[in-house]
Amino acid sequence: MAQEAPRKQKVVIVGAGPVGSLAALYAAARGDEVELYELRGDLRDPTTIPLNFTKSINLALSERGISSLKGSNRHCMIENILKDAIPMHGRMIHGRDDGKLWEAAQAYDVHGQAINSVDRGTLNNAFLDELERTPNVKLFFNHKLTGADFHSNRAWFERRAPGDTPLPGSSNRVPEIEVSFDYLIGADGAHSASRYHMMKYSRVDYQQEYIDTLWCEFRIPPSDSGGFRISPNHLHIWPGKEFMFIALPSPDKSFTCTLFAPAAHYVQLESSSQKLVESFDTNFPGVCPDLITPEALQEQFKENPHLPLISIKSRPHHYDSNVVIVGDAAHAILPFYGQGLNAGLEDVRVLFEFLDKHSAYDLNASLEARRESRRTAFQAYTDQRTADAHAINDLSKQNYLEMRWGVKTPLYKIRKSIEEMLDLHVPSLGWKTQYARVSFSTQRYSDVVKVARRQGRILGYGLASAFISSIAVAGVLVWKTPSRFSPLPILQMTIGLLSETWTQILPKRS
Amino acid sequence: MAQEAPRKQKVVIVGAGPVGSLAALYAAARGDEVELYELRGDLRDPTTIPLNFTKSINLALSERGISSLKGSNRHCMIENILKDAIPMHGRMIHGRDDGKLWEAAQAYDVHGQAINSVDRGTLNNAFLDELERTPNVKLFFNHKLTGADFHSNRAWFERRAPGDTPLPGSSNRVPEIEVSFDYLIGADGAHSASRYHMMKYSRVDYQQEYIDTLWCEFRIPPSDSGGFRISPNHLHIWPGKEFMFIALPSPDKSFTCTLFAPAAHYVQLESSSQKLVESFDTNFPGVCPDLITPEALQEQFKENPHLPLISIKSRPHHYDSNVVIVGDAAHAILPFYGQGLNAGLEDVRVLFEFLDKHSAYDLNASLEARRESRRTAFQAYTDQRTADAHAINDLSKQNYLEMRWGVKTPLYKIRKSIEEMLDLHVPSLGWKTQYARVSFSTQRYSDVVKVARRQGRILGYGLASAFISSIAVAGVLVWKTPSRFSPLPILQMTIGLLSETWTQILPKRS
Repeated sequence: MAQEAPRKQKVVIVGAGPVGSLAALYAAARGDEVELYELRGDLRDPTTIPLNFTKSINLALSERGISSLKGSNRHCMIENILKDAIPMHGRMIHGRDDGKLWEAAQAYDVHGQAINSVDRGTLNNAFLDELERTPNVKLFFNHKLTGADFHSNRAWFERRAPGDTPLPGSSNRVPEIEVSFDYLIGADGAHSASRYHMMKYSRVDYQQEYIDTLWCEFRIPPSDSGGFRISPNHLHIWPGKEFMFIALPSPDKSFTCTLFAPAAHYVQLESSSQKLVESFDTNFPGVCPDLITPEALQEQFKENPHLPLISIKSRPHHYDSNVVIVGDAAHAILPFYGQGLNAGLEDVRVLFEFLDKHSAYDLNASLEARRESRRTAFQAYTDQRTADAHAINDLSKQNYLEMRWGVKTPLYKIRKSIEEMLDLHVPSLGWKTQYARVSFSTQRYSDVVKVARRQGRILGYGLASAFISSIAVAGVLVWKTPSRFSPLPILQMTIGLLSETWTQILPKRS
Repeated sequence: MAQEAPRKQKVVIVGAGPVGSLAALYAAARGDEVELYELRGDLRDPTTIPLNFTKSINLALSERGISSLKGSNRHCMIENILKDAIPMHGRMIHGRDDGKLWEAAQAYDVHGQAINSVDRGTLNNAFLDELERTPNVKLFFNHKLTGADFHSNRAWFERRAPGDTPLPGSSNRVPEIEVSFDYLIGADGAHSASRYHMMKYSRVDYQQEYIDTLWCEFRIPPSDSGGFRISPNHLHIWPGKEFMFIALPSPDKSFTCTLFAPAAHYVQLESSSQKLVESFDTNFPGVCPDLITPEALQEQFKENPHLPLISIKSRPHHYDSNVVIVGDAAHAILPFYGQGLNAGLEDVRVLFEFLDKHSAYDLNASLEARRESRRTAFQAYTDQRTADAHAINDLSKQNYLEMRWGVKTPLYKIRKSIEEMLDLHVPSLGWKTQYARVSFSTQRYSDVVKVARRQGRILGYGLASAFISSIAVAGVLVWKTPSRFSPLPILQMTIGLLSETWTQILPKRS
């Protein structure tokens, strides 16, 4: 008996940012009919204003993101994304002591690996161009998700004419369209409408928190000769106890900068232009007027929005076999580990690995059988990925403190030096810093946290034992040796060694 | 110059449950034009199916709720609510030892105060009848909030014909109406649409959590002679380590009962009717067949929904001077302290106390000046009430453990006895149990937690000192007295006293 070929599976994806776009490529490669709906206009159109941004900020792309991009097998697109990327091999810490400016480089990795500064616009363009070349993907801009029924698998979108204000419930609504699907992927960001509708079906434990920090974007222009004003291969940090100013290189030789500070401090800075310049001079020495003129600083602070930072945890990340959420929709994280984009892209890789593993893309199976497989795959994705999302969420919070403060403390540097020495000289140990595991591997985030904790304990014991045994040895020497043997030379030697270590650990100031 | 009377203030309230209704009465009493919008049909109409319920459950009304009702000055309405209320003076714990059923009463309050079992329908009817008699309140049923703009203070509602399915985004939508307001009160429950729209304007820290417990409602019918089958003046508890079955009296001499159990246990019970009856016999001795027939038990378990329990914390509870949330919309809490309704009604009292205090209802002031005052009042409400909401949220979670397990432990009973003794015999100390403070006072929840912790520490020190000084005295007697003095009689006396105390503390089994 001739078997009828089963109809193709239809996937609706909400959100055409990098994460939703990558999901569309993964689904299309597996034979699905893909429809990708985006609230905003075509992101390649320069008149389209990205939500919440006056301009797009730079993104940090590292190993997890890149390996997830590679899973799409779109080599040409990946080349386009990476050709304008600027590798950052480490942090450059800026400061001033006794009136003298200094900068100190801290390599991210003892093997020389780097994270990449990528322009959000470049990334979006590369994705959307690639999607347009893919026959089984349809793109819909200016479509707002207004409702979803995850029993009958239907969603409703409002089509908004370009230029309409996105006022909720405004009377210039055009009629909605109804779209059916086999499953829906929600990739519509921290304020996800997909997640909101999913939460009417799935019992989601959900937590969102605004930290007491606002951010505002600035720009360091190229130098008069058209070059970079500071090292292009570093992520520049002006740390402070409560503030932080960072700068990432852009292909046009400018730097995209961000000021992070408590809301109360923003209120102070908003009170007068002079306060802003003074605060920069006090907290971020060498930025103004050296890199940005006072006029530009004041203008940008006035023009660019002062935006909050949200942190979101949710579990589960799916409902039955009908909807799954990825990226910021599932787990908005603070930007301080540079992992937001990477975690979102990795969601897509992990999700489709589970779908493949559980035969949800076995094209010979009936749609019904594939639905069963998909349910299992979604559950596996939730189980693995919520643990990892929670882990990178916590790490990103902790890293804010490290970036602002920890990078300058001796203890941080001691641990970094010892760990890097072990990694470099005793590779068989598999010893790596937490930063290297997060940024230069695809080890699960939750495993990174476990391993880093274990390494911390071992180092703690090691240092403590070394200290105690030194004391013990000194004690034995003092009490047991004939009095003509003085312990003094040994103490002197120890102090000499410690001071040598100290010198090695201190930043090399230029 | 003759001054023009300022126009009346218009308040939109979303949700016509008890909390929204009480807010309408408070606002109307202060001269506002009040519009009250309810998603469901008229709750007095027996064909209106309450959301999430097959039938309404009984509610526990205690001091906070009653004093907040009294703030409306609608004495006739309050009388109507309370005339059918059944006072519950304490818990009745049920169990079985050595094959013999027992029950043990634990009074809630040493002064005989009681909480009241109130029928949700009675409460709704009383409120809605009263609102209809109030000229400056307009009621709108079958209106669903679909959007809100809290800058221009407009909201949009879908009018749904009675009987329409509440499908999100369904195509049988009727055109929306636009409603403007001076301020909006969101009283639309745990899944509040008001809160959802407010969160687009206000930076809300928000947390929702489903506990691993489902609930299902049962009914113990009146006895054949038409009376109550068990004591009507107790809240009956069949405690268990993981389960709990409770029964509250109803005016028709039946009991409304609730089974609480982990989701995994529900799956087991759903697998066979026999398992259900067996589980009741094992875990809740004396319920089936003594109070409910096996047939009724099985039928009710099959017919009545198995529902989750959600716990919600949010902060702030307002945005600017434009919107404020109250009741479950602001802080859904677990039902185990019987405080959900009371906390919601108290929100209304506290909110309007702040509005009065900050002159937001000074009818001689301009609407602009009143708006400024309202902003201050809303902020004060958030500051006070979020702390209290978080406190009762935590207490309600802890009380689940106490109700299932703690009520049977000696330590719980010792503390309860000592505290009640201090309250009764040394009233000048102001010593009260935590339960009495929560249920029979209007002390702030957050203060109750602080005082209870302090009392706990004092009791701990007290008991420890008593113990240590007894040991010390015994030691002195043993070592220092001439050997013809034996410490034995003293030890015997101590043991006798302890065993007497124990007997007093153990439940009086009938």
